[in-house]
Amino acid sequence: MTESSPARAAHAPAVLDLAHLHGSLSDPALLSMNLLNEVSDHYPDAVSFAPGRPDPGGFAIEDVHRYLRIWTEHVTEAEPRGAEAARNRLYQYGRTKGVIQDLVARNLAVDENIHADPESILVTVGCQEAMLLVLRALRADDRDVLLATDPAYVGITGAARLVDLPVVPVDSGTTGIDLDDLAAKVREARAAGLRPRACYLVPDFANPTGLSLDVPTRHRLLDLAAELDILLIEDNPYGFFGDGAPPRPTLKSLDTGRRVVYLGSYAKTALPGARIGYVVADQPVVRGGESVGTLADELSKIKSMITVNTPPVAQAVIGGKLLDCDFALREANRDATARYGKRLRHLLDGLAARFPATSPVAWNRPDGGFFLVVTVPFVADDDLLAYSAKRHKVIWTPMHHFYTAGGGLRQLRLSCSSLTPEEIDLGLDRFASLVTDLLERT
Amino acid sequence: MTESSPARAAHAPAVLDLAHLHGSLSDPALLSMNLLNEVSDHYPDAVSFAPGRPDPGGFAIEDVHRYLRIWTEHVTEAEPRGAEAARNRLYQYGRTKGVIQDLVARNLAVDENIHADPESILVTVGCQEAMLLVLRALRADDRDVLLATDPAYVGITGAARLVDLPVVPVDSGTTGIDLDDLAAKVREARAAGLRPRACYLVPDFANPTGLSLDVPTRHRLLDLAAELDILLIEDNPYGFFGDGAPPRPTLKSLDTGRRVVYLGSYAKTALPGARIGYVVADQPVVRGGESVGTLADELSKIKSMITVNTPPVAQAVIGGKLLDCDFALREANRDATARYGKRLRHLLDGLAARFPATSPVAWNRPDGGFFLVVTVPFVADDDLLAYSAKRHKVIWTPMHHFYTAGGGLRQLRLSCSSLTPEEIDLGLDRFASLVTDLLERT
Repeated sequence: MTESSPARAAHAPAVLDLAHLHGSLSDPALLSMNLLNEVSDHYPDAVSFAPGRPDPGGFAIEDVHRYLRIWTEHVTEAEPRGAEAARNRLYQYGRTKGVIQDLVARNLAVDENIHADPESILVTVGCQEAMLLVLRALRADDRDVLLATDPAYVGITGAARLVDLPVVPVDSGTTGIDLDDLAAKVREARAAGLRPRACYLVPDFANPTGLSLDVPTRHRLLDLAAELDILLIEDNPYGFFGDGAPPRPTLKSLDTGRRVVYLGSYAKTALPGARIGYVVADQPVVRGGESVGTLADELSKIKSMITVNTPPVAQAVIGGKLLDCDFALREANRDATARYGKRLRHLLDGLAARFPATSPVAWNRPDGGFFLVVTVPFVADDDLLAYSAKRHKVIWTPMHHFYTAGGGLRQLRLSCSSLTPEEIDLGLDRFASLVTDLLERT
Repeated sequence: MTESSPARAAHAPAVLDLAHLHGSLSDPALLSMNLLNEVSDHYPDAVSFAPGRPDPGGFAIEDVHRYLRIWTEHVTEAEPRGAEAARNRLYQYGRTKGVIQDLVARNLAVDENIHADPESILVTVGCQEAMLLVLRALRADDRDVLLATDPAYVGITGAARLVDLPVVPVDSGTTGIDLDDLAAKVREARAAGLRPRACYLVPDFANPTGLSLDVPTRHRLLDLAAELDILLIEDNPYGFFGDGAPPRPTLKSLDTGRRVVYLGSYAKTALPGARIGYVVADQPVVRGGESVGTLADELSKIKSMITVNTPPVAQAVIGGKLLDCDFALREANRDATARYGKRLRHLLDGLAARFPATSPVAWNRPDGGFFLVVTVPFVADDDLLAYSAKRHKVIWTPMHHFYTAGGGLRQLRLSCSSLTPEEIDLGLDRFASLVTDLLERT
């Protein structure tokens, strides 16, 4: 051992080799998330159809103060120890499950016809933490696998990678999920000695496809999940944003067998900067045949080692927002929903105006949400994206990032949730010139 | 596949068996965290020496509003786009690394003589997320192990368990870490084909022991880490709270070789309810011999799959607090530090008054922090804790929870950070009656 001395020699720097860090750090899913988050920053002059960002509308920082005051007042009036309770709840560490589960439960009853015991709800740091908690709990050993509709949100693929849980892709088909493929994949996995634990999907206006399951498919999926004995992980960030058609029931509201773990988010519907999501996990858990509580209780144990608590300050802001709209958040989002619908129609009309039926460019027509998928007659990869951003000043998302097992090379995702109609027009003009440029080359 | 029909049959509930969930859920470390967090709630009449909670002092909810306004004003003045920049930063998803790293860096320079590039700092949801990120990155495969001083904070043991990273205990000795044991453990692990990656420790007023490394030991530890080629993970939640003696330099401030990954927290020094921690990870990372950035960049990729962002609302509150005290947070904590010191001395004096030198009860004498350890002539386990809480109305923490490889059965931890001198006296009277009760039985 070296002796201590007054004049210290400098040490050579510690260098870490990526080959000796966790494999997820070399995984396409994690690299995609960074690329997708940062591409718009690199080309500030480009019109970006990339981020699925909510539009701030009339948001003002003063709203944060107002929500916080509404929540403070509510706790002060509702609790026996009044103002002291509000102060302690905001100041101190609280229960790992959260401090606003009762308010979330009331919101779910009003907006989604989901009637959840607040004790089965865990408030999380964004929906992303909820995904990680559920996947960490379900991944017991090397045999476990997750099913996920393909293409899928990179956040679920990345979370699965972080807990070393392989993802088995299930064809999205044209209705959001191909049930025959789901059944076949579960059976194949079991035949190979694996344990398919759950199927992840976004039933409403999925990211990246924009697809939604129709109601009969929802019922059939629930029946099939019971038959196959797998859980369904329902992720619902965009359900409010239907363009005209009446809302479809969530899987969780139809779930009579506690098959559905429901992931919710207030990022798109209340305030992204609060980073408040939640999970409803009412599945009973047993040990040696005896009940030990619910999956929510187990997720709470895991959360105590990840973030301990979701910041009470951020929970209080969302709690105030829910109180402010009397738990009818869907109604409070009516203007935003109309705005998103108008933009989506503007995008669809703009595509039709620029690419006639004879054009080799095609796209799907979601009836809501933030996303649609365009198919092009050339490879739309990251290199082309860089070229498009630089030369044509328009940014979009290569679909191949969302495919678990390859595919999507001639597809791209467009989002217009945070673009004005004028920006959409400008962006589409530039996109059309990119297409012309590429078609002239081939 | 079942056909959809108008009248739906109810499904039998999905039941999960704990045996098929992740092993961490049956691990003592995760069960401890819950037990320790909840025991005080079960016995509201008891005096609790259990939680290492900061004292709210004169905190008022209005402070949260004030900090938020200070931060808003700062961004509005500092950024070219002014008020719009502040609004966007608070509203939108931001960079995964955070929105206040520059403020954290200034605070570290003022308070700790640590001069970190803001790009090497990642703002996290409490220090717990920082631990998880670092351990996830370092655990590449089955050969990797973490070293940690024993006994250790359950948060590090639990985070290691979540990423399936075994913990090799290193004796804390009487000075916080036994360097000979550290060297021996690293060599033994290597001889067994394992890869010891880092050693975790709390050099100042450790939880649970209250021990601090003296300055020569700090230098020797840095030399030894370089010699052994391992990282040091320095966790520093209590460093401000020395009782009189001048602050000792952090390992990071002495680190000339980028050996130290520094974990910081504003939970004890600013506002627990904001849940803001951070990690300084300036280690260079290479791939195939070429630089690809720093460990902070890699941690950011992992964070993008755990929480995506630390809530900007919570970051802004802490940013405002840092601006408010002109980055001199240690000075801003002077009154709190004096209060904690007075309580610790009151606890030490109270123990001495109740247990004379001839008593079989002994304790250590930390010179700051929130904790001390009492050794008793009987087994102080969870059963005795329940008995103590019920019969004698006093709560403490069994030390065995903090030992990785067993031990501490006749030790208990006392914390008095959130107790008044009167509560400490009452609690110690009750604790003395518990000791008398137990000694009469044996």
